[in-house]
Amino acid sequence: MANITKKVSWSSRGDESGGGERTPLLNGSEEVRYTRQLSGDGGMFHIGRLSTVDLEEDMTSDEVNSIDCVKVNRFVFQSLDYDNSENQLFLEEERRMSFLGFKCLEISRWVICGLIGFLTGLIACCIDIAVENLAGVKYFVVKQNIEKFTEVGGLSISLILWAVLNAAFVMVGAVIVAFFEPGAAGSGIPQIKCYLNGVKIPRVVRLKTLVVKVCGVICSVAGGLAVGKEGPMIHSGAVVAAGVSQGRSTSLKKDFKIFEYFRRDTEKRDFVSAGAAAGVSAAFGAPVGGVLFSLEEGASFWNQMLTWRIFFASMISTFTLNFFLSIYNKKPGDLSSPGLINFGRFESDSVAYNLYEIPLFIVMGAAGGLLGALFNILNYWLTIFRIRYVHQPCLQVMEAMLVAAVTATVSFAMIYFSNDCQPLGPDQSEDYPLQLFCADGEYNSMATAFFNTPERSVRSLFHNPPGSYNPLTLSLFTLTYFFLACWTYGLTVSAGVFIPSLLIGAAWGRLFGILLASITPDGSIWADPGKYALIGAAAQLGGIVRMTLSLTVIMVEATGNVTYGLPIMLVLLTAKIVGDYFVEGLYDIHIKLQSVPFLHLEAPATSHWLTAREVMSAPVTCFNRIEKVGTIVDVLSNTSTNHNGFPVVVPVAASDDMGKVCGLILRSQLIVLLKHKVFVELARSRLTQRKLQLKDFRDAYPRFPPIQSIHISQDERECMMDLTEFMNPTPYTVPQETSLPRVFKLFRALGLRHLVVVDSENRVVGLVTRKDLARYHLGKHGLEEMQLAQT
Amino acid sequence: MANITKKVSWSSRGDESGGGERTPLLNGSEEVRYTRQLSGDGGMFHIGRLSTVDLEEDMTSDEVNSIDCVKVNRFVFQSLDYDNSENQLFLEEERRMSFLGFKCLEISRWVICGLIGFLTGLIACCIDIAVENLAGVKYFVVKQNIEKFTEVGGLSISLILWAVLNAAFVMVGAVIVAFFEPGAAGSGIPQIKCYLNGVKIPRVVRLKTLVVKVCGVICSVAGGLAVGKEGPMIHSGAVVAAGVSQGRSTSLKKDFKIFEYFRRDTEKRDFVSAGAAAGVSAAFGAPVGGVLFSLEEGASFWNQMLTWRIFFASMISTFTLNFFLSIYNKKPGDLSSPGLINFGRFESDSVAYNLYEIPLFIVMGAAGGLLGALFNILNYWLTIFRIRYVHQPCLQVMEAMLVAAVTATVSFAMIYFSNDCQPLGPDQSEDYPLQLFCADGEYNSMATAFFNTPERSVRSLFHNPPGSYNPLTLSLFTLTYFFLACWTYGLTVSAGVFIPSLLIGAAWGRLFGILLASITPDGSIWADPGKYALIGAAAQLGGIVRMTLSLTVIMVEATGNVTYGLPIMLVLLTAKIVGDYFVEGLYDIHIKLQSVPFLHLEAPATSHWLTAREVMSAPVTCFNRIEKVGTIVDVLSNTSTNHNGFPVVVPVAASDDMGKVCGLILRSQLIVLLKHKVFVELARSRLTQRKLQLKDFRDAYPRFPPIQSIHISQDERECMMDLTEFMNPTPYTVPQETSLPRVFKLFRALGLRHLVVVDSENRVVGLVTRKDLARYHLGKHGLEEMQLAQT
Repeated sequence: MANITKKVSWSSRGDESGGGERTPLLNGSEEVRYTRQLSGDGGMFHIGRLSTVDLEEDMTSDEVNSIDCVKVNRFVFQSLDYDNSENQLFLEEERRMSFLGFKCLEISRWVICGLIGFLTGLIACCIDIAVENLAGVKYFVVKQNIEKFTEVGGLSISLILWAVLNAAFVMVGAVIVAFFEPGAAGSGIPQIKCYLNGVKIPRVVRLKTLVVKVCGVICSVAGGLAVGKEGPMIHSGAVVAAGVSQGRSTSLKKDFKIFEYFRRDTEKRDFVSAGAAAGVSAAFGAPVGGVLFSLEEGASFWNQMLTWRIFFASMISTFTLNFFLSIYNKKPGDLSSPGLINFGRFESDSVAYNLYEIPLFIVMGAAGGLLGALFNILNYWLTIFRIRYVHQPCLQVMEAMLVAAVTATVSFAMIYFSNDCQPLGPDQSEDYPLQLFCADGEYNSMATAFFNTPERSVRSLFHNPPGSYNPLTLSLFTLTYFFLACWTYGLTVSAGVFIPSLLIGAAWGRLFGILLASITPDGSIWADPGKYALIGAAAQLGGIVRMTLSLTVIMVEATGNVTYGLPIMLVLLTAKIVGDYFVEGLYDIHIKLQSVPFLHLEAPATSHWLTAREVMSAPVTCFNRIEKVGTIVDVLSNTSTNHNGFPVVVPVAASDDMGKVCGLILRSQLIVLLKHKVFVELARSRLTQRKLQLKDFRDAYPRFPPIQSIHISQDERECMMDLTEFMNPTPYTVPQETSLPRVFKLFRALGLRHLVVVDSENRVVGLVTRKDLARYHLGKHGLEEMQLAQT
Repeated sequence: MANITKKVSWSSRGDESGGGERTPLLNGSEEVRYTRQLSGDGGMFHIGRLSTVDLEEDMTSDEVNSIDCVKVNRFVFQSLDYDNSENQLFLEEERRMSFLGFKCLEISRWVICGLIGFLTGLIACCIDIAVENLAGVKYFVVKQNIEKFTEVGGLSISLILWAVLNAAFVMVGAVIVAFFEPGAAGSGIPQIKCYLNGVKIPRVVRLKTLVVKVCGVICSVAGGLAVGKEGPMIHSGAVVAAGVSQGRSTSLKKDFKIFEYFRRDTEKRDFVSAGAAAGVSAAFGAPVGGVLFSLEEGASFWNQMLTWRIFFASMISTFTLNFFLSIYNKKPGDLSSPGLINFGRFESDSVAYNLYEIPLFIVMGAAGGLLGALFNILNYWLTIFRIRYVHQPCLQVMEAMLVAAVTATVSFAMIYFSNDCQPLGPDQSEDYPLQLFCADGEYNSMATAFFNTPERSVRSLFHNPPGSYNPLTLSLFTLTYFFLACWTYGLTVSAGVFIPSLLIGAAWGRLFGILLASITPDGSIWADPGKYALIGAAAQLGGIVRMTLSLTVIMVEATGNVTYGLPIMLVLLTAKIVGDYFVEGLYDIHIKLQSVPFLHLEAPATSHWLTAREVMSAPVTCFNRIEKVGTIVDVLSNTSTNHNGFPVVVPVAASDDMGKVCGLILRSQLIVLLKHKVFVELARSRLTQRKLQLKDFRDAYPRFPPIQSIHISQDERECMMDLTEFMNPTPYTVPQETSLPRVFKLFRALGLRHLVVVDSENRVVGLVTRKDLARYHLGKHGLEEMQLAQT
């Protein structure tokens, strides 16, 4: 294995793996106990060399160990199985089903997608209305208070009022997340990325997560944090999809007895991708962008019919939101609010760009890439810090409240010390213009950025006429908001990073536009600051999240104008290239910090010299077609291996220990068989016993009981189980000489969970699972092997 | 096989298969000789029951035979191999290559994509300028002539002039297509769909095809046919991509010795999809739409890096076109012509739609679906007619000229008898306003639709102010243009169907808008005829071609306004659902008429009862690892089988005839081996002989010589060949019990060409190829088996 330059661990999981009792979750809401003292502060500083280039380059193994601080329960991440287990039961059902039956299924799928879209739109609508009202009340109260105290002095009371209000909202949001459902923390996008990639993050698509997420995001946005309500919509849509498509809620213990056919990973993942798309669509009014988002994240299992259904869900979602918001805004039939964020209308005339501006846009893209990388590195440090020191729910809540109070204080200070007064025009669209120390008929310009929901601030930066902001205001705003947003992302609250990124970018973009206009002698027409704000927003967002195609379309759909398509594309591409040079995207960092066995699109380029023989796990625990119950129970109970898939073999004539592969059976199937005591002896004695059906497997899906909960008596241990009917008789296999890229391609293209490696006699020699493939990684000097959480 | 309701043949290819000398090509440019008289006209009328439902339902086998009129050379359609042959040579090369080497390759891919985009944009630019100028000259001459003769009488001379000019242009276009490169006929979209699906249509990506295509489309558009220049751009882009990515032109016998790594199907197909996207992008100014088009057609082999490269190519393509056209239009830096078709700007204020209009849009979508189905059925009949009777190049040219003359005559008659005079406003944007018999200061409204390039007519219908057309004009125009366009599609000229479809739809859509406005008492503000023209255009186009997601995005990008996203989506979905009820999309009809083994996205739903054992081809011709040259030559020369892939086996100890599979070797590889005489005996005797390298295979790609051209002496026939080093040692295999959907999924997801079916001992029992899978088809009553051209 000479070509693997180094075995590295990215952040967590040493070889010590016992003791972690709580599920680790993405986005810094980990709950882990420490058994080992950290080796000083060394780790913190080494992480400074974060970029994928540097981190792996010159860290000695000691250094690597020094950041091995988080212990992850080894058996946290299950894989999804996108490959149908085509056992006899399944085939019998499929063959029994008529053509009409399939038509009905297809129609059900469309109905479900419609429902997903509708419910997602409705949730978005609720969030929007709740946030608007809560924030409205808050800003109204604070504004009254400020106006009262501006004249009589004693503005510090206003500050305290503001800070307390913010902290109160955020406390509620943080408490429900930290104590009830840590899985609802953050934007949820990394979790959904993992889910679409085929990793089952625990509790990620539960109803409780959805409820906490929705309440949490309302609180954190109303609490004035530097967050957006858009990211969480994607997670919400995914949960809705997972729930609706299964026709039941395990949490509510309610089974509607519908859509039972869809109770398996294959179908569920399709619907979840529709849900994620519907979420994007509702968040940004971008149905096509939503489809592309799901596509970018889950391209391996794509087909045209699915695309259309996803498109349908997206369409319904944005339409539902639009419809209800129009009614709420008392303009029914107007349909002017397709998304939660509304960039406002860019009129075609004012937004034309010139050829010579393109280099400027590219420069802005590079700047966005740099700033994005800086943001990501800072946030990475912070996350490491949080994983180490801020892991108790109480501490997490307190940190969130602290951030809320600090945000209010900083905002207030900025507004207080700013003397950028602007005339209050007749067509003034500010919702809460603060006069403060400005003359009558004027308002404080800094307040339009800080004393507002971030969505409105973005819109102001895009559309306020030239001259609304002076450069100093914008610089200060950019600087403070950058650090506030960076500090905020990863708090134990539900919140997204899209809007803060856009806001930071819009601010420095507008600043850039103003500076450009000031250095050109003749006039400022061409450097419309709103246009540069838009480009800056795209650059900053691209630099942080590193999406390209889907983000371009989302931005274009959100602006409602395709004129900017090309500049936005260029900017996003540049930002991605520049940013990737330093560090990965924010979501990828958070995924990597959890050692999730995330499969990228292709095997590392230089991995052709590795073969299946080298990457596979061996030896493999196999079962015979007819196996003793005791053996099965023992294997399943063995916590040190905890395998999920077992090849079924027929013994070869003589000598050999390994049999010929004749099938593959999953842990979940064995559990159901054991639970129903499908033993050969019992079947003989009780002839009337009901035959096990696919329905029994579906009823148990997805929360199969652990083996410990199934009681098997000593007598029963001596019985035999016939697996023939239940195993997948045609698992995909590869010869052991197959190269890693070839194995990878098969695995990724078909969304496999287990791939059996055989020798030329068809005997089982190994098993390839997700973690075997995900650990190879392309570093600066070639292939590297990482340690990952077990699948 | 009781579940297969019927074995049907769609149009062509009976069991008599000798004698067809020329390659059949899509789009009615077939060149075949007949050996059998048609059994009367029966066939023609049966085809009336075209819908996939009816055609297969109640045709007796006699009836089916009666339309078996076209003989197709059995070995026309080769498959592309999207699976790398990972033989020893390949692995050695990959393992030798450094990390830097892979980086360089990646950069080359980006450079190639940039070049593809640039050249495609340039070609689009040339086509646009040439068409504008030729058409300009033509319309100017005819207009002068008409004006001259309007007063003195004798307009029949103008008519003759117009008809002759049209016919002359079209003659040139048809002659080059019919005599030099029949593959350049039509829009090329069906061919590119097939290529991306994995079927190699002969001569489809040759330089000569490109040249003829470009000249042909200029002639046919300038010749006033009811065609567009957009569809052919997709084909042009694909040819450019295939050429550039290979770094050489076989036609010009010029090898630049670059990009040699990309000389295989896998890489080439990636680039061709980028080229197709660049073509769409240049045609409609729709880079995202282009990416989605490639995606819809080739989703099986998708990954994110490829998406970004395709996006890059699309972006460069539209930018190049925009840049050069801006310069040509003397507005450098303005960048206002992103595509060949420019729908003009829909201003946001005028285009808002109301909720209650959505049902109207859906009705229009349904109408579009119906009209589209009618168009497709008529064109299907016409194509069958052409395949039978119009197969000589001379006849084809004459038909094209006839259509051109008739188009001119009908147009002239319509203009002549129309008395719809409209005032010539001050901001008149008509390019060739014909006064004819109108009063001074007025122009003939019918002439804006007929006496113009179709692109300009579409724009007039979208944007001319309400009242520019009276309903009678529009009805007559719709009716005549519908039949003209239907007659034109499938002529032996290069031309697309997008613009005529849009034009028909825009005409009846505008008519619908006018009628709506007239039946509402109060006013016509809400029913802006331009808006309904746009929706009608989308509906008609969707009804004909049945694309959804990509077409939505293309339309949105072409209108430059996302407001209409939702209505267009709804309309296209409705049109597709309604249309699909009757008949397939136009491109699919033309693909099916050629019996192309086109693989759809999924296996038919009810095919679970079929297993690999039933679908595979058996027995299989296998080779031993060390095989006698004579045997190989004999097998390759056997024209009755003409296999392209051969499993390599090691004989099993005793008794068995079938050996264990240990590899797979392709015809093309064997040909190269034979050509270089890589025989065991020779290697021993001539130790200095150069070892065969991957380069030798790449040099021969893609036009491997036929076996007949390789001379093998009697002595050499007795030599042995060692295939070990050249075969793919790890071909994908499936057990023979694997269900058809499972086989299909593996085949489609990996883009395979051959899939070896093995028994439990790993012995070869069969081989699944594209045609084995493509022949199963879901009819009204369940699974049906079709006859297809051999792969």
